Amino acid sequence: MESKIKKLEQLLKNDRFASYNQIRLVAIGKGEATAEMTVTEHHLNGVNIVQGGALFTLADFAFAAASNSHGRIAVAANASINFFKGVSSGKLTASAKEHSSGRTLATYTVDISDEEGTKIAFFNATAFLKGEY
Amino acid sequence: MESKIKKLEQLLKNDRFASYNQIRLVAIGKGEATAEMTVTEHHLNGVNIVQGGALFTLADFAFAAASNSHGRIAVAANASINFFKGVSSGKLTASAKEHSSGRTLATYTVDISDEEGTKIAFFNATAFLKGEY
Amino acid sequence: MESKIKKLEQLLKNDRFASYNQIRLVAIGKGEATAEMTVTEHHLNGVNIVQGGALFTLADFAFAAASNSHGRIAVAANASINFFKGVSSGKLTASAKEHSSGRTLATYTVDISDEEGTKIAFFNATAFLKGEY
Amino acid sequence: MESKIKKLEQLLKNDRFASYNQIRLVAIGKGEATAEMTVTEHHLNGVNIVQGGALFTLADFAFAAASNSHGRIAVAANASINFFKGVSSGKLTASAKEHSSGRTLATYTVDISDEEGTKIAFFNATAFLKGEY
Repeated sequence: MESKIKKLEQLLKNDRFASYNQIRLVAIGKGEATAEMTVTEHHLNGVNIVQGGALFTLADFAFAAASNSHGRIAVAANASINFFKGVSSGKLTASAKEHSSGRTLATYTVDISDEEGTKIAFFNATAFLKGEY
Repeated sequence: MESKIKKLEQLLKNDRFASYNQIRLVAIGKGEATAEMTVTEHHLNGVNIVQGGALFTLADFAFAAASNSHGRIAVAANASINFFKGVSSGKLTASAKEHSSGRTLATYTVDISDEEGTKIAFFNATAFLKGEY
Repeated sequence: MESKIKKLEQLLKNDRFASYNQIRLVAIGKGEATAEMTVTEHHLNGVNIVQGGALFTLADFAFAAASNSHGRIAVAANASINFFKGVSSGKLTASAKEHSSGRTLATYTVDISDEEGTKIAFFNATAFLKGEY
Repeated sequence: MESKIKKLEQLLKNDRFASYNQIRLVAIGKGEATAEMTVTEHHLNGVNIVQGGALFTLADFAFAAASNSHGRIAVAANASINFFKGVSSGKLTASAKEHSSGRTLATYTVDISDEEGTKIAFFNATAFLKGEY
């Protein structure tokens, strides 16, 4: 089991798109995970709020950690995101939870909140479960 | 009108998240736009395919260009993406088209294709239309 | 307040599409609601499982009850549904919960389960909040 | 081939939920289909507009026809719908088009329009392709 956890940590550390955009994993458990991103200038879009793609990536990384936490490779089949509030600064937190899990498909929801705990976006995604890693 | 086009170009050039991730606008028209991204190592995730967030950002940038092309500020209310095929290299193209447009809401669809023209993801988003820019 | 509850009950009872399809409200609270549907032959599609539209309607009705429970008219702006398992008979239950709520937009998630408690579909929707009813 | 068309027609005619709700197929081709629904009182919700589930079912039926048109059983894995405009009467038309098609997944988009041709909702869904029917 320990080697599984090592492999998972390795797999997540190896997410170069998340690293490049300063997104970091802060907690992981069975079917759940938390990721953070501190907003800097290069996360902003043309109207000076965090770009939707940056929020999506933050949520997607928490989802990847949670959905890969059972020892099998999980990849997203589809995802949707609702944006509630534009933000321009501060630390954003994405919390992923398993919603349901079958033999080949699993669903996860992710909340993105700002430092005051206000929900700023809601993400949900379906993962295809593949072989063990 | 020309000043509108200038303002729009300025707004898109100012998208620091897109620039930072090497996403560039290649064409824009009324209600449509095309963006490109050449895959490099830092677009990859832990299993060595382009991270879902990178594909989302590419689509979202084409959507932002298309939805802002009418002279009014448009922001995404929600977006969904379906992933068809993992890719690891090459130039990816996102083509956004207006699907329908009302007084306050407009819907856009975006295809992401690889160099062979194979569709690798499909994105659709609803924009809220705000005041003129 | 009591008159508000009466009005809400009236509004839900007046949902002729839900009634016509034998969908009934079983519980309602602030930001949450439960609806049921016992599968009969006319809920089935061409391959003899419950039609996606019947599941959607069941979820949508629970969502309508939950999202209208605060005294303001709420209408769906968008909704998505993931289907996990085809079913052909039995009593299906949809449980709607409020996920987040702002001044004009609120998000709800709905689980649909069969009699054994197995999740068969997951629905989420964004409501626009209008004036008081 | 002719027997395939017969089987498809049979499969669609056998959709009891669509029939029960007065939804009818009006055209079908390879990867595309059109369905109609004339609004009657029992399609309405508590605020006297067509219930979201009725619109979803109309779109879903056109999608089922289009996605099953290639000789293989197709079932929806997920679907999303955006609502643009509430309607209370008239004939509604859903036009489904194939957006992309792979070995096991295919994506379809469906427009729902009123009699004036105004788009009132947009639906998109991913189908899983199973064995031949």
